[in-house]
Amino acid sequence: MNAEQFRKQGKEAVDAIADYYENLDSMPPMSEVKPGYLYGLMPHEAPEDPEPFDDIQKDIKANIMPGITHWQSGNFFGWYPANSSFPAILGDMYSAMFNVVGFNWICSPAATELETVVMDWVGKLLGLDKRFRAIKDDCTEGSGGGIIQGSASEAHVSAMIAGREMMLAHLHALGMNDEEVDGVWHKFVAYFSDQTHSSGQKATNIIGCRSHSVPSDDNFRLTKKALLAAIEQDRHAGLIPFFVCGTFGTTNTAAIDDIPGIAEVAAANHMWFHVDAAYAGAALSCPEFRPLAQGIERADSFNFNPHKWMLTNFGCSALWVADSKHLVNALSIHRAYLPRVKGATSFAKDYHNWELPLGRSFRALKLWFVIRMYGASGIRAHIRKHVVSAKWLEEQLLADGRFEIVAPVEFSLVVFRIKPSALSDSPGADGEVANRANADLVKLINTDNRVFLVGTKVKGKDVLRAAIGSAHGNQENVELLFKVVTELTTTIISGRY
Amino acid sequence: MNAEQFRKQGKEAVDAIADYYENLDSMPPMSEVKPGYLYGLMPHEAPEDPEPFDDIQKDIKANIMPGITHWQSGNFFGWYPANSSFPAILGDMYSAMFNVVGFNWICSPAATELETVVMDWVGKLLGLDKRFRAIKDDCTEGSGGGIIQGSASEAHVSAMIAGREMMLAHLHALGMNDEEVDGVWHKFVAYFSDQTHSSGQKATNIIGCRSHSVPSDDNFRLTKKALLAAIEQDRHAGLIPFFVCGTFGTTNTAAIDDIPGIAEVAAANHMWFHVDAAYAGAALSCPEFRPLAQGIERADSFNFNPHKWMLTNFGCSALWVADSKHLVNALSIHRAYLPRVKGATSFAKDYHNWELPLGRSFRALKLWFVIRMYGASGIRAHIRKHVVSAKWLEEQLLADGRFEIVAPVEFSLVVFRIKPSALSDSPGADGEVANRANADLVKLINTDNRVFLVGTKVKGKDVLRAAIGSAHGNQENVELLFKVVTELTTTIISGRY
Repeated sequence: MNAEQFRKQGKEAVDAIADYYENLDSMPPMSEVKPGYLYGLMPHEAPEDPEPFDDIQKDIKANIMPGITHWQSGNFFGWYPANSSFPAILGDMYSAMFNVVGFNWICSPAATELETVVMDWVGKLLGLDKRFRAIKDDCTEGSGGGIIQGSASEAHVSAMIAGREMMLAHLHALGMNDEEVDGVWHKFVAYFSDQTHSSGQKATNIIGCRSHSVPSDDNFRLTKKALLAAIEQDRHAGLIPFFVCGTFGTTNTAAIDDIPGIAEVAAANHMWFHVDAAYAGAALSCPEFRPLAQGIERADSFNFNPHKWMLTNFGCSALWVADSKHLVNALSIHRAYLPRVKGATSFAKDYHNWELPLGRSFRALKLWFVIRMYGASGIRAHIRKHVVSAKWLEEQLLADGRFEIVAPVEFSLVVFRIKPSALSDSPGADGEVANRANADLVKLINTDNRVFLVGTKVKGKDVLRAAIGSAHGNQENVELLFKVVTELTTTIISGRY
Repeated sequence: MNAEQFRKQGKEAVDAIADYYENLDSMPPMSEVKPGYLYGLMPHEAPEDPEPFDDIQKDIKANIMPGITHWQSGNFFGWYPANSSFPAILGDMYSAMFNVVGFNWICSPAATELETVVMDWVGKLLGLDKRFRAIKDDCTEGSGGGIIQGSASEAHVSAMIAGREMMLAHLHALGMNDEEVDGVWHKFVAYFSDQTHSSGQKATNIIGCRSHSVPSDDNFRLTKKALLAAIEQDRHAGLIPFFVCGTFGTTNTAAIDDIPGIAEVAAANHMWFHVDAAYAGAALSCPEFRPLAQGIERADSFNFNPHKWMLTNFGCSALWVADSKHLVNALSIHRAYLPRVKGATSFAKDYHNWELPLGRSFRALKLWFVIRMYGASGIRAHIRKHVVSAKWLEEQLLADGRFEIVAPVEFSLVVFRIKPSALSDSPGADGEVANRANADLVKLINTDNRVFLVGTKVKGKDVLRAAIGSAHGNQENVELLFKVVTELTTTIISGRY
């Protein structure tokens, strides 16, 4: 395939993409295939000879498309939004064109430098504290800075590794020798709440430390009091707290942990404080949400995913550290074939020392496209539109009378359920009855498949989560969601399903 | 930006990509900017209002392009090839279109199932042992299987974590209780050679275990004897060997470790045996290279990067395990919001339990495009073309008389240097003189910038590495490389530079 053929076929692909987005809402959001559907449709070996693009296009329509759950549909309300946008797709196309592997500055100076500059842009856009800047106002190098990683999971591990490094340095500073440090290595404990994203638990599996899942309060928040109690208990058992994750917008309910309280506890205990704002961090581009984020300025690291609710295709996870020292100490590797730039390090960061992998693609490009083609004003409008829709949905559900809202609607997530009292004439309706009804409502909605959402369980209750925020959805999609939910709730209450 | 605008701008981007590839060879391969060049060319805050695509296109030409080191140029011989191809770019475009986050089967069944099927295709294409298959010939589930990760670094950490899990299970099976296991946690040692990719060292930094860098032999290989000696020494000190990496094509010289010998040692010591074939694994698509890979069938895990020398854009790193049990045990996470498919698990793998992150993109798509549009025959032709060029370069360098070949040329990497005897009339020319001359030759070549390569240091010697394998390069580019090297070697020998 030469460049001339690519001109033709690339343009066909562009049209296919545009067609897809124009027709998204006409397709059921959830795939309805059965496990193993594709195996029967495909040869079981690579073809010996080249096949034409036309055949692949046909197979995409006939075989791949039915197996797609359409995350970009306006009728997709599952998990959290995974925004795509045309500017981001264009950025990805240019990134695929250059296909540089940017582990070092000389691998492509533009890749390193654009990442540094754009991450400072985004930090300012969110109102992050100056501690997190790579380049200070006077154009000198800051001690912190941002990096684009592939996912919040990788950011979580990276932060935990930096935290372990900080604690090791602290123990050495207290006078422990290497052998003594070896002897306490297995006593390190990371803290998060029972509502923290699974990446917290997984990060402890990866680095091989202990984890303490602290019970959240009635509003699904990690509190200072509960964290202190957990730390006290562990210290009593001879363990060493070294890391805590506070979440700004948890996975289940978008709850906001007691960030200032956690910051205080972390500082008093020499612990690394990581803030996971994977979903809700995007809202900080609007100043009205910043009062919710007090205390973030005291974190050691802060992470959010532009690839969730900020119009940037997967994977684009933004991680900032206030001081890169411990992260870089823990992850630095030197080899003769990895030349380093002397001096001017603020502009020539060795980002491979800030992350788990060595190889890295030119991810800053798509983020740069998104920010420029939407502008700060466009990004804020995107966020606010969905928050308005979420508030509208909350009001409608309450006005209906049969639902309860399970968690405060601060952003664009609405967590709700059919009230037990709507299910039975007897006021003391059994909790399991309500749980079964709500779990069945999730199934009924997804079998109906005009809209898609997922259920979850919080504090023993089965609930529904409507995560609004598709870049291609609008108020009409949320109105359809409400219509489907209320219709099928009537079916549930009637018991005839 | 709506779909109509995207049709126009997407097609402009397609033309820009085709133009880029048509003009690649006319640009100096290495970027010549100075650190910080971009900061002065850019605003220091996000724009408030949207900016037109035209402005971004202009900035790419004026500001980004000068900061690109052109990895796709036929005149780029640095590190290892990082292939891009038009089929892979098309695949990436479709992947960006769907933008699914495929952590679970229902997230998009096609994403999970295509990955399973295509990884079995590639395993067969490379002649991998059946142990590594997800689906057996009788269509039942195998104990192994493949996964596409982002990079060989991530694959290396994943394998090491699986190895740790296997050793923990072994220690428990020997009768140790949890407390006793805690007490030896810090005694785990991973082995590799002094030629293993930096990702081995980094993986030990990440999981927090000890590492033992074993001296390679005169051919830069990890031998059974040296590995056994290292293990014996560590056992004597009370340590616990649990993991060893053998490399099929090392970073410095493309050396092949003693794979059968390492397999034997690993089995006798209950150690996990990971084979890193990041670069050279692609050659196994040609049967004539398979005799070099004896012993790989006994590995616990095998990894190569289609994004290096197999025509697939970054990031596409293929990892197989013979038994997924330990990997999945170590990395599994269950949450109420992550629904699992019951039964038919061979077709509905929870790949998030096979890797570090939760979120994952539809990477199988580009690999599928590449394999279909090149066919197995096209992939083999791509490999063989570069191997022929490498042999040609080796012969020319030897025929010239002034160079020595530092390592056997098995694949498409040629490691060479100016011979000390070519530098001085006195036969006992000092090693440092030759080192300085060869390091200077690298600098001179890259300042000249008709071709790009990197130098490295092996066994105390400064050498040059010419990594052939660009998808967009051919024999003429290698001839240019030879011309530049010989010309500038004359300059070096003359001492007038």
